[in-house]
Amino acid sequence: MPGGGGETGEAGLARRTRQDRPTRQAQIYETAARIFCEKGFDKASMGDISSAMGLTKAGIYHHITSKDELLFGIMSYGMDLFESKVLSRVEAITDPLERLKATLRGHVLLVTRDRPKEVTVILHESNALTGRYRDRINRRKRRYVRFLQKTFRELGRRGLARRIDPEIAAFVMLGMINWIYQWYRPGGRLSDEKLADALTDLLLNGVLER
Amino acid sequence: MPGGGGETGEAGLARRTRQDRPTRQAQIYETAARIFCEKGFDKASMGDISSAMGLTKAGIYHHITSKDELLFGIMSYGMDLFESKVLSRVEAITDPLERLKATLRGHVLLVTRDRPKEVTVILHESNALTGRYRDRINRRKRRYVRFLQKTFRELGRRGLARRIDPEIAAFVMLGMINWIYQWYRPGGRLSDEKLADALTDLLLNGVLER
Repeated sequence: MPGGGGETGEAGLARRTRQDRPTRQAQIYETAARIFCEKGFDKASMGDISSAMGLTKAGIYHHITSKDELLFGIMSYGMDLFESKVLSRVEAITDPLERLKATLRGHVLLVTRDRPKEVTVILHESNALTGRYRDRINRRKRRYVRFLQKTFRELGRRGLARRIDPEIAAFVMLGMINWIYQWYRPGGRLSDEKLADALTDLLLNGVLER
Repeated sequence: MPGGGGETGEAGLARRTRQDRPTRQAQIYETAARIFCEKGFDKASMGDISSAMGLTKAGIYHHITSKDELLFGIMSYGMDLFESKVLSRVEAITDPLERLKATLRGHVLLVTRDRPKEVTVILHESNALTGRYRDRINRRKRRYVRFLQKTFRELGRRGLARRIDPEIAAFVMLGMINWIYQWYRPGGRLSDEKLADALTDLLLNGVLER
């Protein structure tokens, strides 16, 4: 990841940026997330990040003006991935049970497969942001919570779900998914497909024998 | 909390320490946890913590030799509370279903009631520790995970639970509980008793209508 395709100068960055902005930006955010997780946000410097990218300091400042902006950029990138790869693909599903299953599966696979662990870790640290940046990230997170609550409410109205509190159900689902990076190791005994199935089974059917 | 009962000198600390060590230590850990959460671990100084406690710097160094030791102390204190208030009270319950219910309820109420939010936040940051300190905290956490896995396995053997993966079930339960501090506000529309009941209901019975 660091250094990308071997282009190390600012000219190379600018050239790639025009052609392929999301990929280069994604590399910066993923690398910065890794450095922040390794060193801590306060200890990591812009120099650490630019050298991990094989860029000059001027090269990184061409894109990012401060560490706070970078933190906001990583979280926005994490939310972009979530919204494009998960939320936008499931919002239009009419049947609430199918919508819930697709959301759960998509979100689990995003966490295990499509988004580097460090981006997920940082996305959960929204207290590290302040002011307008924090409001903007929290607004996007709340939109997802409202979507989940609406889905659980619909399940209830159609007689598919028991009388459950939609807010609690939404945060139980978020808790089980957002805890994955604390314990799950990709490539171990449990594939991410099986993990997604098991989490769906547990949320929908619970533990007890019927 | 800062300044405790108004005793601000080192003599006062020493006198209380002999009579009432856990309480004074608990005050130090809870205050330090709050400061670490507010300022960040790297930015917070021992001076910030001693002045929040109304102690001299010498007063705090009498108890704690470094910030790393303090971080370990806060996590150990968080685990002490968990083990004394929850784990030690439920381990001996013979019936696995009753044991699971008592554990879930005890853990939820610990998080909402008995342990300041900041101690919980820091307890989840075990990557901030290194070496021997980290091993010691992780060993205590793993003991709890094994206890949960054993309980889910017993539920299965007695025909009470469906065929579920005990490791996944354990981490689903931890995820739903450890996510509480991210969204739940004590004193709001939802009492912590009702929260504990709802989480028990969702884990044991799932969402779907039977």
